[in-house]
Amino acid sequence: MNKPTPRITTGALPASCKVFIPGQMHQIAVPMRSIHVSNETPLSVYDSSGPYTDPAASTDIRQGLAGTRGDWLRARGDIEEYEGRAVTSADNGFAEGDRLVPEFPKLRRPFRATGNRAVTQMAYAKAGIITPEMEYVAIRENLGRTEAWAEARDGEDFGAAIPDLVTPEFVRQEIAAGRAIIPANINHPELEPMIIGRNFLVKINANIGNSAVTSSMEEEVEKMVWAIRWGADTVMDLSTGRNIHNIREWIIRNAPVPIGTVPLYQALEKVGGVAEDLTWEIFRDTLIEQAEQGVDYFTIHAGVRLHMIPMTVKRVTGIVSRGGSIMAKWCLHHHRESFLYEHFDEICDIMRAYDVSFSLGDGLRPGSIADANDQAQFAELETLGELTKIAWAKDCQVMIEGPGHVAMHKIKANMDKQLAHCHEAPFYTLGPLTTDIAPGYDHITSAIGAAMIGWFGTAMLCYVTPKEHLGLPDRDDVKTGVITYKLAAHAADLAKGHPGAQLRDDALSRARFEFRWEDQFNLSLDPDTAREFHDETMPKEAHKLAHFCSMCGPKFCSMRISHDIRAEAQKQEGMAQMAEKFREGGALYLPAEKAQ
Amino acid sequence: MNKPTPRITTGALPASCKVFIPGQMHQIAVPMRSIHVSNETPLSVYDSSGPYTDPAASTDIRQGLAGTRGDWLRARGDIEEYEGRAVTSADNGFAEGDRLVPEFPKLRRPFRATGNRAVTQMAYAKAGIITPEMEYVAIRENLGRTEAWAEARDGEDFGAAIPDLVTPEFVRQEIAAGRAIIPANINHPELEPMIIGRNFLVKINANIGNSAVTSSMEEEVEKMVWAIRWGADTVMDLSTGRNIHNIREWIIRNAPVPIGTVPLYQALEKVGGVAEDLTWEIFRDTLIEQAEQGVDYFTIHAGVRLHMIPMTVKRVTGIVSRGGSIMAKWCLHHHRESFLYEHFDEICDIMRAYDVSFSLGDGLRPGSIADANDQAQFAELETLGELTKIAWAKDCQVMIEGPGHVAMHKIKANMDKQLAHCHEAPFYTLGPLTTDIAPGYDHITSAIGAAMIGWFGTAMLCYVTPKEHLGLPDRDDVKTGVITYKLAAHAADLAKGHPGAQLRDDALSRARFEFRWEDQFNLSLDPDTAREFHDETMPKEAHKLAHFCSMCGPKFCSMRISHDIRAEAQKQEGMAQMAEKFREGGALYLPAEKAQ
Repeated sequence: MNKPTPRITTGALPASCKVFIPGQMHQIAVPMRSIHVSNETPLSVYDSSGPYTDPAASTDIRQGLAGTRGDWLRARGDIEEYEGRAVTSADNGFAEGDRLVPEFPKLRRPFRATGNRAVTQMAYAKAGIITPEMEYVAIRENLGRTEAWAEARDGEDFGAAIPDLVTPEFVRQEIAAGRAIIPANINHPELEPMIIGRNFLVKINANIGNSAVTSSMEEEVEKMVWAIRWGADTVMDLSTGRNIHNIREWIIRNAPVPIGTVPLYQALEKVGGVAEDLTWEIFRDTLIEQAEQGVDYFTIHAGVRLHMIPMTVKRVTGIVSRGGSIMAKWCLHHHRESFLYEHFDEICDIMRAYDVSFSLGDGLRPGSIADANDQAQFAELETLGELTKIAWAKDCQVMIEGPGHVAMHKIKANMDKQLAHCHEAPFYTLGPLTTDIAPGYDHITSAIGAAMIGWFGTAMLCYVTPKEHLGLPDRDDVKTGVITYKLAAHAADLAKGHPGAQLRDDALSRARFEFRWEDQFNLSLDPDTAREFHDETMPKEAHKLAHFCSMCGPKFCSMRISHDIRAEAQKQEGMAQMAEKFREGGALYLPAEKAQ
Repeated sequence: MNKPTPRITTGALPASCKVFIPGQMHQIAVPMRSIHVSNETPLSVYDSSGPYTDPAASTDIRQGLAGTRGDWLRARGDIEEYEGRAVTSADNGFAEGDRLVPEFPKLRRPFRATGNRAVTQMAYAKAGIITPEMEYVAIRENLGRTEAWAEARDGEDFGAAIPDLVTPEFVRQEIAAGRAIIPANINHPELEPMIIGRNFLVKINANIGNSAVTSSMEEEVEKMVWAIRWGADTVMDLSTGRNIHNIREWIIRNAPVPIGTVPLYQALEKVGGVAEDLTWEIFRDTLIEQAEQGVDYFTIHAGVRLHMIPMTVKRVTGIVSRGGSIMAKWCLHHHRESFLYEHFDEICDIMRAYDVSFSLGDGLRPGSIADANDQAQFAELETLGELTKIAWAKDCQVMIEGPGHVAMHKIKANMDKQLAHCHEAPFYTLGPLTTDIAPGYDHITSAIGAAMIGWFGTAMLCYVTPKEHLGLPDRDDVKTGVITYKLAAHAADLAKGHPGAQLRDDALSRARFEFRWEDQFNLSLDPDTAREFHDETMPKEAHKLAHFCSMCGPKFCSMRISHDIRAEAQKQEGMAQMAEKFREGGALYLPAEKAQ
């Protein structure tokens, strides 16, 4: 074997170390990133990056991550290990020989619920059980809240119910009510649980997918590791073509975040790309294949119904969801309701046996400003609401996918209708893009919409990279997309008034005002880029101590002048107080207006 | 002379040519950019780029642009040419010899109003006069509106009064009411007039400034040309240090867009950077110096009053406006009201004699999320409202500068208070940035706030580049900042419901749906980047005709499938109609439900 060593990005972020908060109910240790700040207490921030940023942890993608969560799962006593479905050549798109990505080396047998049990977080929540996963996310979300207690609450949450402190019991209630989900397949013991819901921090998803030309398992795992390093909370594997089964296994075994997929893509591969040839049996088999691997949520386009298809015919951009267009084509060809809709009950039975969460796909989302908020889009949304009720009755966890391309004045209606029709199930939107005219900058056109809809109540934002509409994102594009969405999600958290959300802004602004350049870099979402941009103009180390910056120079530095002003004002205030004392004591001075 | 040829970026944008719309009242020709689209009528878009993108025009920065507007000015018979103020060595920061940027070669004498006249657009508007400038901007703004007449109005304008068609009389009324300004110094005959107001398209400003190290007049002119090529509507020259007088002359003589400055910066240079040594006389002399050169708007920080300074002492980031901090320091040192506030009447007298517009500076804007919407900020805003009334009484044009750093839920209050306190004078904001934690990405943190406040009613958005807070923007940063703000302004125009604003989105989306890649590139805000991103994955020319793209490949292309669906649905609809006819004709068929 003379293969090169897998190149996975590891190591701590600048001035950062991992800290672990222990549970009080369960044997858990919740990781956070602690950023060193000069002359201040270290700042803890939410950390989705997994063991890869922990110098104390050794990671080897051939081993996969430690399956810590396995103990929690087995302790519940409601799952069984079984033989599992045999992997077929079709699962990997008939890739053979050199073109076949090797199987993940560690053999494992899948788990499923015993009997007809629902082993979902929703089932436990409804039964009044606080799982380790629930306590884990409570600790994770709680970040900074105790420090912020002294501060008055600030923000506009549009009817959300954001608590002062996130307790495990609060998490349980939210999951029981369907307002939040913890995507956590029982076959994904490597997972560090996270929660998606309107009353929690806004999350972001990054999409990755195999390249047609060069696919190695190292590359595919690295895409995921890279995305979570910069803050992706979940990762969707949208691979198509060859090797997708094996690549998915490599990704999941190395993923500390929930992995989502669109099973329809793989099912379509199995019928040679001919949508009309899809069958319920092939789709069902694909669901089980992926559920056994440990996929945490499935996008299921069950809301595309036959009678809605004519509603899209006059659109400027028709159907732009891949899954939606595949199902629409199938429905139209067979002139019948889709097998996803007709077999939705059976899909629920699979989901509940592995705790795969639904991400009910918006197959009819608008692909242009012209098509936003139209009849087709909202007809599908109502159907997704109906399906939500069916899934909940089976204790399945559900979130709802949303648009797309929507001008700013039409965004709020999307959130309001989603809340109304889908009974407060978490909303998961793609952007939305607020204009069509800036290809190459659609991470920005969509960050505007994403920040707004996140503020209005969307629980997770699917990122858009600069390459959207134009090509496949490279490594830099993925990072740009993730950072852009992190800042949009954070802007939403601030506006919603999450207690403690502003701690990082305040720490960074204090550093800025006090010319602590290193702290400013370290506290920022992308310390490397901040440092690099600064060093382009002022490369010398000494400048990092300078009490001015390259932009204005020392003469014009408003912040430096502000310090002078502060000193002067305090001096003058001191004198005024002194004068006041004299006055009170014996009228040595008279105030000017009284002296006249 | 063996100097290199000045390198100014010229030439048309891809698939574009200049067209000129003649006036009906005045001898004017209003330029627009016409983009060729296959199988469709060409799309006209707003064009701020001046003659530099017109292959038919020859530009030579040593000659300056043609002073077409000079004829309109002289025809009014209310201005006089005069000797003007002698340029001093201090005006150029005492630069000498090799370090002195040469004077602009074409000598000119300045104009000013005769007698005590106000030669402002506001004075004419109040007198019922429709100037050529007013007709010019009416034609410019009207772009696409006639084509969009058939469409129903859409949008939420928060109480603005956006007309179906912009008539010259509407422009006059808006200017007379103070709701809009045309920044147009009588000493800037090279200007292509534009309008700033809530009922017009949202505009953007780009800041440029000299570099301490390498300043040549070609470089400085090129910065301006580059910014307007990508869509900057106005340019502020924020140069400091040496040569600023001469560089400013080069810029204005070559600028088709309004040029703004902060005269305080140059005044401070004249007193060696010591704020306390500033005097009204030096400031006044600087105003006249710059007014004679043709600066179209001045930022004047007259709202910073002595009693407000203590309000900033407890802030996280103090005073972050350079002008604000300079004036605060002066006030505090002398313990008196600022000379800008005390001499505001006299400043108005200068502004009206040249028609320099006020941009009333927000010296106390918040520099961090923590400081947003505080007492200091709003106290100053109220003072700016008082000053607006004084300026209007002298027929001076006024806009109001705004923040800064503001979380999303506090943005609308800024707009509402500005409208209330400043009597609907146009608002001109910097962003606002919606979080502090993303240095290196502040074009994006601020584009979110900019799009929103533009929607709420802000008339012009000052761009922020990726280098904000970190260093000096280079050429790429300037372009990124301008494109980012163009898309934010456009998102605002769409949401406000400007008739015709969506024409470009629709044309681009049609091109996207029909796989017309070249049209998609050409219609986008940055055709070069769109093409480059596409070519990274699919470089071949043949791929530009491909009915799929690199992202999903042919099997998964939702748009390609949509075409199949459309064809199939139309076929089925056709069959249904046929069946309907049979039924009507003689009941050959019975509908299924009736047949039971």
